[in-house]
Amino acid sequence: MAVRTLILALFLCLLLSIFTTSHGYKTHRRGRPCKELSFYFHDILYKGHNRDNATSAIVAAPDWGNRAEFSGPFDFGYLVVFDDPITLDNNLHSTPVGRAQGMYVYDQLSAFSAWLSFSFVFNSTEHKGTLNFAGPDPIVDQTRIVSITSGTGDFFMARGIAILTTDAYEGNYFFRLRVDIKLHECWE
Amino acid sequence: MAVRTLILALFLCLLLSIFTTSHGYKTHRRGRPCKELSFYFHDILYKGHNRDNATSAIVAAPDWGNRAEFSGPFDFGYLVVFDDPITLDNNLHSTPVGRAQGMYVYDQLSAFSAWLSFSFVFNSTEHKGTLNFAGPDPIVDQTRIVSITSGTGDFFMARGIAILTTDAYEGNYFFRLRVDIKLHECWE
Amino acid sequence: MAVRTLILALFLCLLLSIFTTSHGYKTHRRGRPCKELSFYFHDILYKGHNRDNATSAIVAAPDWGNRAEFSGPFDFGYLVVFDDPITLDNNLHSTPVGRAQGMYVYDQLSAFSAWLSFSFVFNSTEHKGTLNFAGPDPIVDQTRIVSITSGTGDFFMARGIAILTTDAYEGNYFFRLRVDIKLHECWE
Repeated sequence: MAVRTLILALFLCLLLSIFTTSHGYKTHRRGRPCKELSFYFHDILYKGHNRDNATSAIVAAPDWGNRAEFSGPFDFGYLVVFDDPITLDNNLHSTPVGRAQGMYVYDQLSAFSAWLSFSFVFNSTEHKGTLNFAGPDPIVDQTRIVSITSGTGDFFMARGIAILTTDAYEGNYFFRLRVDIKLHECWE
Repeated sequence: MAVRTLILALFLCLLLSIFTTSHGYKTHRRGRPCKELSFYFHDILYKGHNRDNATSAIVAAPDWGNRAEFSGPFDFGYLVVFDDPITLDNNLHSTPVGRAQGMYVYDQLSAFSAWLSFSFVFNSTEHKGTLNFAGPDPIVDQTRIVSITSGTGDFFMARGIAILTTDAYEGNYFFRLRVDIKLHECWE
Repeated sequence: MAVRTLILALFLCLLLSIFTTSHGYKTHRRGRPCKELSFYFHDILYKGHNRDNATSAIVAAPDWGNRAEFSGPFDFGYLVVFDDPITLDNNLHSTPVGRAQGMYVYDQLSAFSAWLSFSFVFNSTEHKGTLNFAGPDPIVDQTRIVSITSGTGDFFMARGIAILTTDAYEGNYFFRLRVDIKLHECWE
């Protein structure tokens, strides 16, 4: 009887295991993040005469604009490439722990919104590797959420979200963002 | 005997569980989507004199081209930024449920193909949040498949595919796409 | 007694299953890839007089540059669109098994580094479908790692990394990359 119990238990256990782990589609629970990190990055736009300290530059614009300065409604169509220092606090002159590198494009006709596609490239004693970000950043909102699609090194195969807050902003030519990273998929 | 049966059953169950959920690499079954949605979006390109109703604009082109109109074989190298209304049916004048925002670039030398990198930004009573799309769109094919890499809000951490169908097309300056979204990874 | 043993075993098994598969956050082990593939792709930049054999073109540059040739420190801000043949060996004239299509942008102020956003579009008897790549490529390093964020067709929902090695490089106008693909998430 005990043997039949054992066999039956294992068979049902197997069935259960198949149904909970191998069903045709995957649904996960949100829960709390598996890793949380916070950083700042600082962007100084090239505006015609500051190549020494600029960290970003307009590289594309619509036919009605030009690459020396923003123009038109909500800067629509302007594409900016950047290489911005990442710091642990909100001081531009703190030792960088990496660089935020990639591009953003103003892509909303009715308000300021920057579509982001960039990476954090970490190079500190604490973190090596990259995290890749993508998504719309409606910059007039107090906080915005973009996706973290992938990573390498310490962040191998990571996925999650990042909460962006504007920490400083000066007339389209300087901004500092606070980035609160919440990874929900971690590969040890 | 029953106690030993129980212990043995649990031990084997534990082993089974470890083997089915924690192996070194992950393989999933395709199965059916965990969520399916369909939308249309409508793109009206700026062509020199229609800034009032245009929803997209050329912002970059090769050295042999210019940003006022497409030229060259298969518009290779042209980069377009867009902010297109999303609707539930194929009527441009229906109330939008969100905006398709991002860019596409014609990047094939031998045929028309648009490489897409954009987001759906939902803002309706039914859906809030974003979905991010990426991949090649060989527009001359009847249907094409691009990837959904991530999402936020109602689509937190979502992944899947989107089937694109050209619903209308007028001489490079207007198109309407039907987008059938199939999410295969859902986070509740 | 056996029945109670069975019920208890199943209850504990269920609890175990819930804890191992449905916790609030996901952590996976790295382990070995579920699929490995290697390819080469070949890029010939347009430089003013080679439209017949060029496979890529500068389409955007900062205000201090132009689209006919690279200039400035580390080509910062230059955006290139490409449609490069993919081959199984390092011979440019081998039969292509697909095309590498997308863009890269030089986005580092202190060294050569190309931020990549592109797809492999396979069209051979062996592989149909796409893989999407993203991430920084510090080209002066011997090997670099970028992310594979998604895929379609044979590579439906795939994720992983790609190891890039420069196999040939000629004065900014020709390069050949070896791409070692390691998928860590496979959907059968």
